[in-house]
Amino acid sequence: MLHRTCLAIALATLALPTLADEAKKAHTPTAKELLAKASPVEWRTPDPQNLVYMDLPQGRVIIELAQDWSPEHAANIRTLIREHYFDGTAVIRVQDNFVTQWGDPDGDDKAKAKSLGTAKQTLPPEFTRKLDKSIPFAKLPDGDVYAPEVGFSDGFPAARDTAHGQAWLTHCYGAVGVARDVGAETGNGSSLYAIIGQAPRNLDRNLAVAGRVIQGMPILSAYPRGGEPMGFYDKPEQRVTIKTVRLAADVPEAERTPIQVLRTDSKTFTAVIDAKRNRKDDFYTLPAGKIDICNISIPVRDPTKKAP
Amino acid sequence: MLHRTCLAIALATLALPTLADEAKKAHTPTAKELLAKASPVEWRTPDPQNLVYMDLPQGRVIIELAQDWSPEHAANIRTLIREHYFDGTAVIRVQDNFVTQWGDPDGDDKAKAKSLGTAKQTLPPEFTRKLDKSIPFAKLPDGDVYAPEVGFSDGFPAARDTAHGQAWLTHCYGAVGVARDVGAETGNGSSLYAIIGQAPRNLDRNLAVAGRVIQGMPILSAYPRGGEPMGFYDKPEQRVTIKTVRLAADVPEAERTPIQVLRTDSKTFTAVIDAKRNRKDDFYTLPAGKIDICNISIPVRDPTKKAP
Repeated sequence: MLHRTCLAIALATLALPTLADEAKKAHTPTAKELLAKASPVEWRTPDPQNLVYMDLPQGRVIIELAQDWSPEHAANIRTLIREHYFDGTAVIRVQDNFVTQWGDPDGDDKAKAKSLGTAKQTLPPEFTRKLDKSIPFAKLPDGDVYAPEVGFSDGFPAARDTAHGQAWLTHCYGAVGVARDVGAETGNGSSLYAIIGQAPRNLDRNLAVAGRVIQGMPILSAYPRGGEPMGFYDKPEQRVTIKTVRLAADVPEAERTPIQVLRTDSKTFTAVIDAKRNRKDDFYTLPAGKIDICNISIPVRDPTKKAP
Repeated sequence: MLHRTCLAIALATLALPTLADEAKKAHTPTAKELLAKASPVEWRTPDPQNLVYMDLPQGRVIIELAQDWSPEHAANIRTLIREHYFDGTAVIRVQDNFVTQWGDPDGDDKAKAKSLGTAKQTLPPEFTRKLDKSIPFAKLPDGDVYAPEVGFSDGFPAARDTAHGQAWLTHCYGAVGVARDVGAETGNGSSLYAIIGQAPRNLDRNLAVAGRVIQGMPILSAYPRGGEPMGFYDKPEQRVTIKTVRLAADVPEAERTPIQVLRTDSKTFTAVIDAKRNRKDDFYTLPAGKIDICNISIPVRDPTKKAP
């Protein structure tokens, strides 16, 4: 059996014209190949007012705030950051195949909880947004189990329901949500979670999505899972202390992390999705033909480096 | 705003008859409540010939082999286990939001690779199975982005395509697949991977699923991600050495890990799925109404303990 494989590889190496043509036809371009050819205008530099640097002992996590989707949360999070609320708080909960959550370990204890300073204690839910023609929406044609329509809206995976006039951000891998108490208005951004497993889309429309991790998921996803119910750490020493959280806008330009995100309304992004949807090469012989909104990663690059 | 929440909680505590009735109506049962009422016959004890104990420094991972779906792979893996092939091999690759893979770190180097002993070097692909009325299939009514039909088949999330007469296991969280080279027949079970992120359903029908992790995913999912392309560890010391891999059947009965899995054709399993699909309580006010096959966890329990 190995013999046959070796023969195929050997023939491919010989690159006989007809075989090479066949290979070309069969091979879908890779994301890397497509990104190498992307036009510079297809990359955007996120607004530094919406970029959050969370510095952990293992490195930097960068979050882009969803200003258009949860403006009140974005504003409150900015206030908390600027008043250094998050510095010295911690990763308090890691529930396998679900979320990594951070904030004040004593946040639930009124006597010990850190002051929110001038930030608000409660906020309007911002779980959904009224559907409006001004909301960009590049619809994904593949369908979805949870929502009538899914697609991308200016860098965020989103869903909409035209019948009910609503749009919302989907809880895909890397989504940053606002932890809250039972009441819909009890979230304020002082405790946030990132999705680290199979997209828990049942959270959609029940919690506010405040943004999306655009760098550093491998840090947030690899912390030991907590032993208490819901993944809370049972011993204080298990918590990972957050060094600092800063807004890129407050960091001198020369010290900012160079990062750009591929525009989700660009031709290259559409091509990247299609290449994954119909991936066919020597290894993947059977293309899926479809793709789930949460199986699509939005490419980022360091613009100071040549290759993305 | 907090005041309103407190009032709601206070009223609930008072448990006025009408309010209690309302609460009862609104509250879907939790998985825990449903499992507490499950009949003993709804739980099955996996065949010890199909149960793999992989002992890592962080604890035991238990895999149930998919005997009915990839019998040649199951047989080869049993041979490898019985000849102690895996003992001393390692976790060699962790790619974020994708897979944790283990096997012989020198497996790709013919000169240094560990001998497979009497196990086979190549196997028939077993990526799909011919659709047959004898294959149990509890269809999920929610639809699926990737396959015409999805459901559960004797403990495994599966898909089928009646038009093309095929059935296959889906790459959901915890699925254990057979790593292979380019050729479809180059997999033999000596290197396996577990899905640790958003279900990469494009792998379906392109790789053999050999089983499913039924205990220990929090161990496999929390290893540091590797720095090389595809998440391979760049330094040998980053690899986690596997202590031993044993078949439960080869372990004296008294020393086996007590574990039972909820039957996927049971009424309780259907109720657990429905409770998650339509979850509505004080926290989740808007039920999703739908559920993705890969958002469903199959409950397990320690039958020596009272509560599951």
